[in-house]
Amino acid sequence: MRIRGPRQRVCLPRGFRFSCGLAGIKASGRPDLALAEAPQGAAAAAVFTRNRAAAAPVLVGRARLVLSRGRLRAVLVNSGNANAGNGPAGVRAAETCCAALARQLGVAPGSVLPSSTGIIGVPFPAQKVVAAVPGLAEGLRSGEPALRAFGRAIMTTDLRPKLASASFSRNGRRVCVAGVVKGAGMIQPDMATMLAYIFTDVAAAPSALRRLLKPAVDASFNAISVDSDTSTNDTVLLLASGASGADLAGVQGPFSEALRGVCRSLAEQVVRDGEGARHLVRLQVRGAASAAEASTAARSVANSPLVKTAWAGCDPNWGRILAALGKAAFPFDPARASIAIGPHRVFAKGRALAFDRKAAHRLMQRPEYSIRVDLGRGRAELEFLTCDLTHEYIRINAEYST
Amino acid sequence: MRIRGPRQRVCLPRGFRFSCGLAGIKASGRPDLALAEAPQGAAAAAVFTRNRAAAAPVLVGRARLVLSRGRLRAVLVNSGNANAGNGPAGVRAAETCCAALARQLGVAPGSVLPSSTGIIGVPFPAQKVVAAVPGLAEGLRSGEPALRAFGRAIMTTDLRPKLASASFSRNGRRVCVAGVVKGAGMIQPDMATMLAYIFTDVAAAPSALRRLLKPAVDASFNAISVDSDTSTNDTVLLLASGASGADLAGVQGPFSEALRGVCRSLAEQVVRDGEGARHLVRLQVRGAASAAEASTAARSVANSPLVKTAWAGCDPNWGRILAALGKAAFPFDPARASIAIGPHRVFAKGRALAFDRKAAHRLMQRPEYSIRVDLGRGRAELEFLTCDLTHEYIRINAEYST
Repeated sequence: MRIRGPRQRVCLPRGFRFSCGLAGIKASGRPDLALAEAPQGAAAAAVFTRNRAAAAPVLVGRARLVLSRGRLRAVLVNSGNANAGNGPAGVRAAETCCAALARQLGVAPGSVLPSSTGIIGVPFPAQKVVAAVPGLAEGLRSGEPALRAFGRAIMTTDLRPKLASASFSRNGRRVCVAGVVKGAGMIQPDMATMLAYIFTDVAAAPSALRRLLKPAVDASFNAISVDSDTSTNDTVLLLASGASGADLAGVQGPFSEALRGVCRSLAEQVVRDGEGARHLVRLQVRGAASAAEASTAARSVANSPLVKTAWAGCDPNWGRILAALGKAAFPFDPARASIAIGPHRVFAKGRALAFDRKAAHRLMQRPEYSIRVDLGRGRAELEFLTCDLTHEYIRINAEYST
Repeated sequence: MRIRGPRQRVCLPRGFRFSCGLAGIKASGRPDLALAEAPQGAAAAAVFTRNRAAAAPVLVGRARLVLSRGRLRAVLVNSGNANAGNGPAGVRAAETCCAALARQLGVAPGSVLPSSTGIIGVPFPAQKVVAAVPGLAEGLRSGEPALRAFGRAIMTTDLRPKLASASFSRNGRRVCVAGVVKGAGMIQPDMATMLAYIFTDVAAAPSALRRLLKPAVDASFNAISVDSDTSTNDTVLLLASGASGADLAGVQGPFSEALRGVCRSLAEQVVRDGEGARHLVRLQVRGAASAAEASTAARSVANSPLVKTAWAGCDPNWGRILAALGKAAFPFDPARASIAIGPHRVFAKGRALAFDRKAAHRLMQRPEYSIRVDLGRGRAELEFLTCDLTHEYIRINAEYST
């Protein structure tokens, strides 16, 4: 199935409208509010952060998905303030904003899901958001430009808007899946990651969406890392309007494929836009004893500052990869392992191999390449996407809040 | 008990001689060999890396401590090549070097412990070391300058030599403990850390030394982190010559105190010299349910790239600390936790507190300050030493091998 990227025309799901606005939360004065609405309602499923300091909108969102039995009318997103670390006042602030929007749209307050990104521990300016709600509701539009504007409005340190879509037809009905995501730092996928919103016009029960969303997230947002940090606000939300008239039961195969493809594309766009990232590395772990072990091994390599700085220097110093595997929490055995940088086999069964260092260095100057690690312990495998650690990451993050 | 640092006169243990030399392993042409000898032998205890890709000298050293029943004559250290990832050839190379030195000193080959630091996965040039052995043995000297030269010869990316010593007297006998350490990057203390050599003239059985060394390492080298990376070569070696005439049984209290103090001072010197580090942060974790939980919490904060870059920017952005606690593998509850930056209480029981951001920013410009985290879950506590993540770390590690 063909997945369309941010530069291609979007396969636009019917049954949604989008808007964005300015509440003045950010000192920069950039747009900081975004709204997606399903005028006829939508079945919803979500994966939230497992961070135990989860932000107020995550706490409120989790509760609302249960209380509404997975039926939502709108999601209200802000940037500039994560509404995390604010205790009960944060929860009240999130509820206040959703209530104002619900009144404006004439829907039940519990059918609006809040979503926030930005600085942690700063009191949430609910009144600024409430004041912006009428304009936000008035600006609601369907169509590709409105979805693209929604995707841009949720950006923070992102350099590029991130968007993916796919479609398929069955029995004369066309089903579309389109998603946007924000995120460039604080990216470690031990769970849902960043803020991602995926819209589809398939008709489905919330429980069926949940069953499909979790494995799609595991194979995409949970198989990437920029910096090993896990946000308090990570959310992947899937909304299905049913407006295509196609029932999920009849199209589960192609829908699942479209959903996975869109998630995978969005996740890859996040790593490509990783803060300061200059190289996207496809870390292919094979020969693991289990899927969990493959993930443990991949993360130990992908999150090692020494490995990531070697990548920044285009340095085929595979010894740091070996050391990162050795420190991970599984019974790594160098005598059974092998490592290759692109086509260059550098280590096999406990021994260094002669290889062309200059050619490997040239390969690592490319914006994207693969590193293969075979653990020699079993049959599980995983492709994990990650990036290098550069001066630019330090610059962005040492200057963020003050 | 007073612990003397690198700028003070050393309390010099009797019964040791030191030497250093040049084998030509390093391209830079800097000294790359160091030798410590106990002419009358020494009881030995060591803590080695738990990295599963342990280097050849670690494998050989572990075996020799068992086979010799903890009696050593010498330790032969090289920098420039870690002799890791080299398979059986690496083990043979380490044995060849030790055998050459043993012949030169007229001692059993099994009484020489090898120790290496440097690049991983490059064949070890044993013949260069063997050729340098006669000069190395000839240069053996006792006295403070010789110990200081030994400490300098083991340096790699270290900016400063690191040395600590302490002494005490009982019944007219003076006992000295003196140690040196190298290490500035690849520092995560899930075990012994870096290369540290501690010499004492107390008379002790190896088993008694082992019992005292492990807790001293846990409270020092295992309570620091520079970059979360764990080397394949980490070693802390304690050698006791017995030349003071004082038996450990009679001085266990003060000896243990001296050993802990020396380990703690050396560990602190490592963090101060952390690659690119501009701020030493004393992370004081309290209210943990167990010692393991305190360590888990401390490491999650100390190893978070977002926390470390905020420190580099002197930014009192405590939300990143909260997020790092929330992602750690223990049941963190923000509603029971509190955070303080120096004297500034910034978060308590789930809520942000008003604080003087400018004063906190000024405090964080100091070369050293403390951050207190109370988890509100129990009575275990830990002081963990760590540092910020700066451009300089990237520069050092993106340029190291090529």
